[in-house]
Amino acid sequence: MHRVQVELGERSYPIDIAPSLLQQPECLLRTYRHVIIISNDTVAPLYLESVKSLFEVSQLHTFLLPDGEAYKTLEQFGHIMTFLLEHKFPRDGLLVALGGGVVGDITGFVAACYQRGADFIQIPTTLLSQVDSSVGGKTAVNHPLGKNMIGAFKQPQQVLIDTDVLTTLPSREFAAGMAEVIKYALIADADFFSFLEQHTSTIQALDSEVIGRMVQHCCQMKADIVAMDETEQGQRALLNLGHTFGHAIEAWLGYGRWLHGEAVAAGMVMAARVSMHRGWLTQAELDRICALLQRFGLPIEPPEGMVIADFMPFMKTDKKVRAGQMRFVLPTAFGYSKVIDDVNDSELQSIFA
Amino acid sequence: MHRVQVELGERSYPIDIAPSLLQQPECLLRTYRHVIIISNDTVAPLYLESVKSLFEVSQLHTFLLPDGEAYKTLEQFGHIMTFLLEHKFPRDGLLVALGGGVVGDITGFVAACYQRGADFIQIPTTLLSQVDSSVGGKTAVNHPLGKNMIGAFKQPQQVLIDTDVLTTLPSREFAAGMAEVIKYALIADADFFSFLEQHTSTIQALDSEVIGRMVQHCCQMKADIVAMDETEQGQRALLNLGHTFGHAIEAWLGYGRWLHGEAVAAGMVMAARVSMHRGWLTQAELDRICALLQRFGLPIEPPEGMVIADFMPFMKTDKKVRAGQMRFVLPTAFGYSKVIDDVNDSELQSIFA
Repeated sequence: MHRVQVELGERSYPIDIAPSLLQQPECLLRTYRHVIIISNDTVAPLYLESVKSLFEVSQLHTFLLPDGEAYKTLEQFGHIMTFLLEHKFPRDGLLVALGGGVVGDITGFVAACYQRGADFIQIPTTLLSQVDSSVGGKTAVNHPLGKNMIGAFKQPQQVLIDTDVLTTLPSREFAAGMAEVIKYALIADADFFSFLEQHTSTIQALDSEVIGRMVQHCCQMKADIVAMDETEQGQRALLNLGHTFGHAIEAWLGYGRWLHGEAVAAGMVMAARVSMHRGWLTQAELDRICALLQRFGLPIEPPEGMVIADFMPFMKTDKKVRAGQMRFVLPTAFGYSKVIDDVNDSELQSIFA
Repeated sequence: MHRVQVELGERSYPIDIAPSLLQQPECLLRTYRHVIIISNDTVAPLYLESVKSLFEVSQLHTFLLPDGEAYKTLEQFGHIMTFLLEHKFPRDGLLVALGGGVVGDITGFVAACYQRGADFIQIPTTLLSQVDSSVGGKTAVNHPLGKNMIGAFKQPQQVLIDTDVLTTLPSREFAAGMAEVIKYALIADADFFSFLEQHTSTIQALDSEVIGRMVQHCCQMKADIVAMDETEQGQRALLNLGHTFGHAIEAWLGYGRWLHGEAVAAGMVMAARVSMHRGWLTQAELDRICALLQRFGLPIEPPEGMVIADFMPFMKTDKKVRAGQMRFVLPTAFGYSKVIDDVNDSELQSIFA
């Protein structure tokens, strides 16, 4: 088993990564009297029984969401709250998020707000949530006017990553997770980029050892960044590489049309194009980025018909905006990124015309 | 001007208390580019213009709620979120809560969750919110199945208390605020109880000097408790004296029938009756409590027709419940209270039969 510790003082917690972890009840750090599992109708038939059997508890209930980003709403948040209250879920109970980013984000936000705070653990079942959204305590629901606009910072008590669950993940979802994996390499680790290039086939074959190393590496990078900057005052914003463009794509298309990771992939290429325009990346480096994304079947262009003017309204309400100025995470060299706050409309127009 | 500092490390903030404070723009600690004032349709006609003129800012908008506890809902929370997004309110803007506990609680919760956290200041316009709900960072909305069930701990940047606004407060609302004032005396300060007995007439006449001292004293007591125990792991629960019974009254009647303070007044008498039954208070002390509450026109009995069995379902989902056991704040002597966790159904039935 790989263990990555997220160091946040009294809110510290471990991320445990192993094949067959859901067969190991001893992986749980502590017991609770009342447990509610929140999952969706795709994941539950596959893993709910395993997860239930982790807990020896008299009071255990399950709430299932419909599958998909379209259900990460304030309305579903309200339905879960009603369910918890109907089942007299106490503040000292445990919520379990069993699913991908949608389930993890909404469950975490429920845990943040239920009676002003209950415990929860993350059991991420997609590659994307294993390497990114389950770690670090960002929780939220979407609003029709913007993604993740309503949320909280709420750290889980534990993250359990069973890498075997990736065997049932649709290949399109696996690819979307690879976008976030590649993101880590572009933020701060050119060696990791080479590792991914060299192991593309074994990764796609879900080789247990390579996948374990890859997931651990991403979790460790994220844990380090979150430990430095839990509430995104600075460094943590780097994790948004590709996300400013990506969120605009998701919002413009309507949530759920493209997967989050697909939008991030196209967004990273757009960010890299801005960097190339500024002389920070070469054409060859841009080509390497596009090639790796494409080997995992990821898009490297915005959706058909979406022009730069369509991005603007969404990017101007991005959470990174400060004092009215858009802020982008851009590669300033290959395997090195920074938050840049002097990109303006005309520069974007000239690059993406 | 009285200033009470709430000491919470980097989340510390001042509570400033003075007559005519809303005429003094220099009372603001810092400036913002974008301000949104949230108020209600009763308070806005009286004080919105004064508050607007505190801010010299290009972007200032106002969102008005209907007046009343019935609107402290997840639905209204969603409406405010939509309003903020429609007005492109940035994460580095300022929300201003201008009103009583309902406006303060919902605005604080919006501030906690909007883009995972924005700044806000409290301008409480009721006695209850001045002495209690505007201080300490408890924010929430109600759910049909329980009061304040959805919320967060979110400290404001500043609390501005203009005691002149009490002149326009309906007398029933003033009395409800006095219930929370009397609560502080019963929690931990028998001398303050005597002060209130001696100054009943000057308090009711809104004598500026006595009111200023009284509000400052309550804010100081609350600030001290919150500084020790921000998220209510222990000591802070004492502030819930009368609230376990009181919340049941509000929920059973339907929110808004009785004012929160009225329910707390009747709840404190119920708590005092349990204490007397246990030999912690004398009949004479109980009579003193009832007499002071009645001098301010507050109820000392539950609503007509509400029997102890009606309280049970609400008290069993109270946020203080731990490991399935109800917990009550009870006076264990006159001017001294504790959290007690061995009160059971049969004891309550025998006292309130």
